Amino acid sequence: MIYADNAATTKMSQAAIHTMVSVMNETYGNPSSLYGIGQQAKEVLEKAREDIAQVIGAEPREIVFTSGGSEADNQAILSAAELGKKNGKMHIISSAFEHHAVLHTLEKLKKEGFDITLLDVHSNGIVTAQEVEDAIRDDTCLVTIMFANNEIGTIQPIREIGAVCRRKNVLFHTDAVQAIGHIPVNVKEDNIDMLSASAHKFHGPKGVGFLYARKGIRLSNLIEGGAQERGKRAGTENVPGIAAMAEALKEANANMAVHAAQLTALRDRLIQGLSRIPHSALNGDAVHRLPGNVNFCFEGIEGESLLLLLDDKGIQASSGSACTSGSLDPSHVLLAIGRVHDVAHGSLRLSLGDDSTQEDVDSIIIAVEEVVAYLRSFSPVWRDLCSGKTHFIL
Amino acid sequence: MIYADNAATTKMSQAAIHTMVSVMNETYGNPSSLYGIGQQAKEVLEKAREDIAQVIGAEPREIVFTSGGSEADNQAILSAAELGKKNGKMHIISSAFEHHAVLHTLEKLKKEGFDITLLDVHSNGIVTAQEVEDAIRDDTCLVTIMFANNEIGTIQPIREIGAVCRRKNVLFHTDAVQAIGHIPVNVKEDNIDMLSASAHKFHGPKGVGFLYARKGIRLSNLIEGGAQERGKRAGTENVPGIAAMAEALKEANANMAVHAAQLTALRDRLIQGLSRIPHSALNGDAVHRLPGNVNFCFEGIEGESLLLLLDDKGIQASSGSACTSGSLDPSHVLLAIGRVHDVAHGSLRLSLGDDSTQEDVDSIIIAVEEVVAYLRSFSPVWRDLCSGKTHFIL
Repeated sequence: MIYADNAATTKMSQAAIHTMVSVMNETYGNPSSLYGIGQQAKEVLEKAREDIAQVIGAEPREIVFTSGGSEADNQAILSAAELGKKNGKMHIISSAFEHHAVLHTLEKLKKEGFDITLLDVHSNGIVTAQEVEDAIRDDTCLVTIMFANNEIGTIQPIREIGAVCRRKNVLFHTDAVQAIGHIPVNVKEDNIDMLSASAHKFHGPKGVGFLYARKGIRLSNLIEGGAQERGKRAGTENVPGIAAMAEALKEANANMAVHAAQLTALRDRLIQGLSRIPHSALNGDAVHRLPGNVNFCFEGIEGESLLLLLDDKGIQASSGSACTSGSLDPSHVLLAIGRVHDVAHGSLRLSLGDDSTQEDVDSIIIAVEEVVAYLRSFSPVWRDLCSGKTHFIL
Repeated sequence: MIYADNAATTKMSQAAIHTMVSVMNETYGNPSSLYGIGQQAKEVLEKAREDIAQVIGAEPREIVFTSGGSEADNQAILSAAELGKKNGKMHIISSAFEHHAVLHTLEKLKKEGFDITLLDVHSNGIVTAQEVEDAIRDDTCLVTIMFANNEIGTIQPIREIGAVCRRKNVLFHTDAVQAIGHIPVNVKEDNIDMLSASAHKFHGPKGVGFLYARKGIRLSNLIEGGAQERGKRAGTENVPGIAAMAEALKEANANMAVHAAQLTALRDRLIQGLSRIPHSALNGDAVHRLPGNVNFCFEGIEGESLLLLLDDKGIQASSGSACTSGSLDPSHVLLAIGRVHDVAHGSLRLSLGDDSTQEDVDSIIIAVEEVVAYLRSFSPVWRDLCSGKTHFIL
């Protein structure tokens, strides 16, 4: 089996599993408890906070543990909105190809009277700092632009966007779920006020993530209750999961340069191989792109059949975001970069992981070539394209 | 070491850890993915949903997985409030000794214009169905009463309260975090519309729980984003944690009768032993009480010192809820049952677990006797009480 859907989720590292089991067995206390095993759990929790803060250039107190990236996105955006509302600033800037955890939260705010500007991302999937600057108004309370896109892997000019926001005195949040653990992220150098991350995207456990919020930013509670996380996130802390997340992040960070170089080489080999398929096109920028991400459109075929046939050949890939895979609508990300409906339907995301090999890549290329040819052989859309009845776009 | 704080958190069962690790290693796919390992994860997820539903007498589609009890409480109450608001019903009934996940959510709703009635719980810590009935108004949209109290272990007449709510056509939610896995809970027979549970209270993992919502009740999203959990709870599902929760719940349920009988005997032995300490009193009802819960007040001492000295003797206990242990305020639960401020400060919660023994109980009794006597020996409050300067209450 070749697992090529690391953007959907990753396999946990053995070190992270080991940490998790060890904490579950040995340090099972409630970190809010005063006695020995409670305080030991508290120490594990605070050590994890320090480790994570160090990796992203934050201070420990700036890290709030959450149940994942979606919760962190929701809390960050709603907090900024609440602050904005208090100051009479009810305009938020984002992009058209954010994750649904951002877009749906913005839709909720729209219903509450917020004005939302979704910036165009152009065909290369990039938002420029200039465009953000041009969109900022006197009543803008938040800019939220994702660090790297989950479908097409495009990396945004976060540092420049952050600098614009600092200069304009507007809060800047970034959904860094796909970036953290894969490419360098430093909240200070990158001028980030709030950042969301999810452990299971960097070989940590599912069900745990964190929100970085620069000190001085008053977070609103998404989950009310006990006084955990300095009163900003109620519920007994998932100590084993948090410790495992910290372990996975340290590991990913230590190996980042080596893995990124390997993955970039594999990615480019894969892109080159798939580009040889006629009437195909890479989605997203070829350079400003996550090391492991490949996303293609193939004209005249339907993405779901492609995935199922690849699965038959032992290749596990996706058409885009796993979060919306139940939906028949084409990816909002591909539509945002200007792919037309039919073409967007024939998309394939291959996200390589740290243990992907050159042999995997070569097998994928052959398999995709075969499957695309096979599907086109009985596709009426393809027949119409070849006969000139309709026109090729790619 | 004697761990006597199972109400704060429990040690995970080895079967649950085994399930968790096995899913992390073998079934790490994203359940939203279409390929093999994604669909296997989906199967694990849906099997867990079936197992949990079966234990509580629900249908699988009525279970929504959350990050824990607090999230479930928040979502249940906010959902009922949103439904109520739509129908012009903005009155909610609860009790004065609910968990803060309930009380703080109600405070938030109060600021939004909801009228909140907090029923008195009397000195035995019980709310009667008649009192609930008397409090229901034409504009009542929700009754939320906890199944069993987390500090004093009192079990409420949930079935009767539920019956009243059904008759009056008012939604009924119960925070069953302390009850699930410990005493029989059947949502159908108990007339429950919504119920919150947390895995780490029944030897499952931290960071995972569930919300039962009777079909037909439209939940609002607390966390917006992907279409997971029928669109009602975004974020990649914590499949290993959910599978481990189901495993732990099945185990707890299978052993419930035996464990409850053992624990009740140990509990009553402990209550009897501690009652011999002069000027002490059991908090909460002696009969309608969780099998493992013992909660005492000792006059003339301060709870935190008691805990620290017990910890020195290897006994891990708490003064009340772990969630608020950082606070210097006395327990709102003890105040709600009528304990005065000073007495409430001298409280001790001992929550026994499935592996507690008679020897543990006897050791606890001796240790508490010794520590209470020691603390009283240099307590100015105690001196005043003994000299008649102030009056004993207990």
